[in-house]
Amino acid sequence: MRPTTRLLACALLAALPALAFAAPYRSAQQILDASPASDWRTLDPANTLYLELASGRVVIELAPQFAPEHAANIRTLAREHFWDNTSIYRAQDNFVVQFGDADADDAAKAKPMGSAKTHLPAEFARPSRGLAFSRLPDSDGWAKEVGFVDGFPVGRDGANGQTWLAHCYGAVGAGRNNAPDSSVGAELYVVIGQSPRQLDNNITVVGRVVKGMELLSATPRGPEPMGFYEDAAQRTPIRAIKLASEVPEGERTPLQLLRTDSQTFRDVAEARRNRVDDFYKRPAGHIDLCNVALPVRTPK
Amino acid sequence: MRPTTRLLACALLAALPALAFAAPYRSAQQILDASPASDWRTLDPANTLYLELASGRVVIELAPQFAPEHAANIRTLAREHFWDNTSIYRAQDNFVVQFGDADADDAAKAKPMGSAKTHLPAEFARPSRGLAFSRLPDSDGWAKEVGFVDGFPVGRDGANGQTWLAHCYGAVGAGRNNAPDSSVGAELYVVIGQSPRQLDNNITVVGRVVKGMELLSATPRGPEPMGFYEDAAQRTPIRAIKLASEVPEGERTPLQLLRTDSQTFRDVAEARRNRVDDFYKRPAGHIDLCNVALPVRTPK
Repeated sequence: MRPTTRLLACALLAALPALAFAAPYRSAQQILDASPASDWRTLDPANTLYLELASGRVVIELAPQFAPEHAANIRTLAREHFWDNTSIYRAQDNFVVQFGDADADDAAKAKPMGSAKTHLPAEFARPSRGLAFSRLPDSDGWAKEVGFVDGFPVGRDGANGQTWLAHCYGAVGAGRNNAPDSSVGAELYVVIGQSPRQLDNNITVVGRVVKGMELLSATPRGPEPMGFYEDAAQRTPIRAIKLASEVPEGERTPLQLLRTDSQTFRDVAEARRNRVDDFYKRPAGHIDLCNVALPVRTPK
Repeated sequence: MRPTTRLLACALLAALPALAFAAPYRSAQQILDASPASDWRTLDPANTLYLELASGRVVIELAPQFAPEHAANIRTLAREHFWDNTSIYRAQDNFVVQFGDADADDAAKAKPMGSAKTHLPAEFARPSRGLAFSRLPDSDGWAKEVGFVDGFPVGRDGANGQTWLAHCYGAVGAGRNNAPDSSVGAELYVVIGQSPRQLDNNITVVGRVVKGMELLSATPRGPEPMGFYEDAAQRTPIRAIKLASEVPEGERTPLQLLRTDSQTFRDVAEARRNRVDDFYKRPAGHIDLCNVALPVRTPK
């Protein structure tokens, strides 16, 4: 009989009692299935973006608690339809897709920004004070401490009292020029590869994709340096980016996100840190910040 | 003037003297440009696979020093045209694409394996003895030590004397069933997302993609669980997987890979660990194993 490979990850879904004398291992899915409704939250429509592509909708949660000025400007730009008929004009393999106005750097052609601000402060990090931080106990090479705040993966430095959003898969950042305060939130990028944590504390992260990553990550990579497309026909058209609060309720995407300060979340991370099932032969005993799943579900 | 965003990474390419009293910072590209020819190696055609897609060629370097039995079987399968007219039948976002015989688990339809072996030992790790290990000084949560052997990122454990290939972006592994020795090298997967290092020491890694990742990573994700496509028309056809040594020399892809035991390689890693340029405001002071670039170039 030929070995089959369909079960590469299936085994993760099948929980098996690990040791007769220990509590039975529960898979991440079993833990989620048994979670109380109170462990889940919904998105605030006023801080949720819908990036509308021909292939579907990408849902982005903004992080105004980390980047209030950028979030406010993005809300203005969305309300004023800035992104209608713009494009994904860059896709660099193992790094980012970037979207907005492909002519942003050509003063003669750049789209007007309406009532949005044309200058914002850098919002790379913020004081830890006032944030509910759920620490991940695992070591991290990039930050003294890592964990989660309101569903976002973060780094933290006790010495300077700062916390910042981490560049994990799906992170949404505000493109900038060399000046730290040169981003305005009009040109956004999304991480589609190995987490480029070297960007942490160097760019303003404004949120993260909570649904629809596969619509961005499968974008054909741009042939020019850094993944740009000189040929406009190769860019992916963006129909619009809308605030969920501006979309009729019946057209919104209902989602529930697991609270990262819940016991369920900690249990899911532990189930992944030390997998006990038919497939895994050696539990890792560790999980990296950007490998922790941030569960999202569609309510029944 | 609207800030522009085209320079998100351009600054990496522009080296600037950092401090008047220190050695001038050199960018990774400048270091590569100044490297001696002896720091580069070519691929062994007998251990190089060409995965031929309609969109182009993916070049894979096999690692027989880590998985000799799998590499030998893969060479046999390639020589006997096993993969002609097979497909990429799975693309799971932020995880892997998988390819080979989509009917592998249907005994009635599975492709015959010719003279290839139908059973191989698990080759998850091997003794460190005999390997030239270039240690990366940075901390790692998944392994006691990490570094490079012959161009491959690896983990190492001094306590048990073992070294293993790490599941970084582009790693090629042999799909298996639950039994550790159930892979035969016919069904292969490639990491296309955040490095799933929990698979280290749990699956036989057989090599890595050295060119053409963007042809795999942009594969539309499969709609079924784990990224499979029930609809065969959605799969990406594979024309063939050939050994480079079986391809006429004029049709081979000439490549040079930076030796990971060279000073140039260490210098490039350091240039990325502590970036000093107009763009970066805060050097990371760290680099993760799977963030270290493995430079490849086409000879002039």
